[in-house]
Amino acid sequence: MKCRRCRKTDAAVDLPSHNSAFCPECFFLFFRRQVTEGIRKFRLLSPGDNVMVCVSGGKDSLVLWDILIELGYRTEGFHIDLGIDGYSGRSRDKVLRYAASRGKEPIVADLRAEGIPIPEASKRVRREECALCGTVKRYYFNRVAAERGFTAVATGHNLDDEAARLLGNLLHWDEEHLSRQHPLLPEIEGGLVRKVKPLWRVSEMETAAYGFLKGIEYVTEECPFSVDATSLVYKEALSLIEEKMPGTRRTFYQGFLAANSMKSDVPANPSPGSCASCGAPTYTETCSFCRLKEQVTGSRGRS
Amino acid sequence: MKCRRCRKTDAAVDLPSHNSAFCPECFFLFFRRQVTEGIRKFRLLSPGDNVMVCVSGGKDSLVLWDILIELGYRTEGFHIDLGIDGYSGRSRDKVLRYAASRGKEPIVADLRAEGIPIPEASKRVRREECALCGTVKRYYFNRVAAERGFTAVATGHNLDDEAARLLGNLLHWDEEHLSRQHPLLPEIEGGLVRKVKPLWRVSEMETAAYGFLKGIEYVTEECPFSVDATSLVYKEALSLIEEKMPGTRRTFYQGFLAANSMKSDVPANPSPGSCASCGAPTYTETCSFCRLKEQVTGSRGRS
Repeated sequence: MKCRRCRKTDAAVDLPSHNSAFCPECFFLFFRRQVTEGIRKFRLLSPGDNVMVCVSGGKDSLVLWDILIELGYRTEGFHIDLGIDGYSGRSRDKVLRYAASRGKEPIVADLRAEGIPIPEASKRVRREECALCGTVKRYYFNRVAAERGFTAVATGHNLDDEAARLLGNLLHWDEEHLSRQHPLLPEIEGGLVRKVKPLWRVSEMETAAYGFLKGIEYVTEECPFSVDATSLVYKEALSLIEEKMPGTRRTFYQGFLAANSMKSDVPANPSPGSCASCGAPTYTETCSFCRLKEQVTGSRGRS
Repeated sequence: MKCRRCRKTDAAVDLPSHNSAFCPECFFLFFRRQVTEGIRKFRLLSPGDNVMVCVSGGKDSLVLWDILIELGYRTEGFHIDLGIDGYSGRSRDKVLRYAASRGKEPIVADLRAEGIPIPEASKRVRREECALCGTVKRYYFNRVAAERGFTAVATGHNLDDEAARLLGNLLHWDEEHLSRQHPLLPEIEGGLVRKVKPLWRVSEMETAAYGFLKGIEYVTEECPFSVDATSLVYKEALSLIEEKMPGTRRTFYQGFLAANSMKSDVPANPSPGSCASCGAPTYTETCSFCRLKEQVTGSRGRS
């Protein structure tokens, strides 16, 4: 089959959800346009931004960094080494290699050095690894952005991630989470930096194809703690529907965004206060990161 | 395993979504309570109602008729013979046999006798069978209710049906259909009778278990035209989630109803006018049923 755009080269990427198929060069053009349109639509980034790209070492975040560099944004990579045996080392290695190939050096936070590697912290405070990981990431994103003067924090969430999260929020009719599900979370004065998801219009298959065709090396294994994640069940259910009705996932998420952007009753979050212990933005007296560190340290003292 | 309620008899019906298991007698009690609560919650029916129960011959509608009789409601069965070779005869037969077992005689509309059997009509007007079937049913429900003085029309839609329909409406973010998805559609002056779905709280597995344990004979085959129905894809996706997270389907639909019943911005439908040809309630000059009949007759004259 020939590429549907140039009609010269053989198609390399089949896109049933767009009823199309492209050769590598035309696919890059398509991908770039999708990301550009995703950024433009909700004004996620402007040329003057200093963007911190959160890179896990997986395909989505490295593809995000790659395309933002290509689009000419000023970026730095930020990686959190979660302290998970084997997996974290391999992930960090991919980040370092990709960064080096672009003449960059990523900022790295090392949870083992901070005394809160995720597996140990999870056992000590008896909370799920994924919940802890979320707390830790939110903390570092804001802290590093504030310390280093980043104006936006970009994460690699793609269309499949966002559609699965939307389905989960709808299945539990979680109005609070629904009201905050958006590719753009604006800055809130008091230390909460703007968060953006520039890949919200591209599917997981599309970022995988982009990464493969660009020769980006990424960690292919899933985080060992994500195996039982409910988000994977939602993804599987949506994949089943997408296979029978290509394009449904896109219609679903874009329809939700269109319906929600018309509503004015979504309350803006108030400004946070400052953590009594570390000064980080928080809605409680001590931030959840400091409480976590204290709990882990306390538990270690007792055992 | 013993019944979780009486703890005497062996459990016959396993209900993971309720984290329970019942013997037949306790299951009947559970089922009756679910239906009673479903009726009470939205005031679907009152003791003075004269209820027309729409019976296809499948398990849900015959179980609905059975439980409404048992709960003491004044009911008559209404069946539409769709004129589908084999399937319609077998379905009608189940309805007649069940009715006879309760000393009743159902009202029957025969689409072959009316000159619009679904398969032929579909070919002649080039519209999908399921769409035509919907038009025909809506027409007869209102007409027969008006002619015979029924105050409510009850259909056998269960929780799985409603959750699948809700998922489809959400995936396409269909605000109009979402605003009208409810176990109760109130009467609208001008000929639109109240429509109710008393089984909205019970799952398909539960109606199947009730039908089996009560010895109700029903047609087990699906309508031959439903094979490609998108609703089956949505059901499959929800079953996949339900299996991993029992109870999600119930949380989903009940959460939606709770959230929507708080909103006051759902516009009430205006009163319909009367069809210029047959007098049936309609929002256009000639009702869609008359237009369908005319198209089929016209096409037959030409061929």
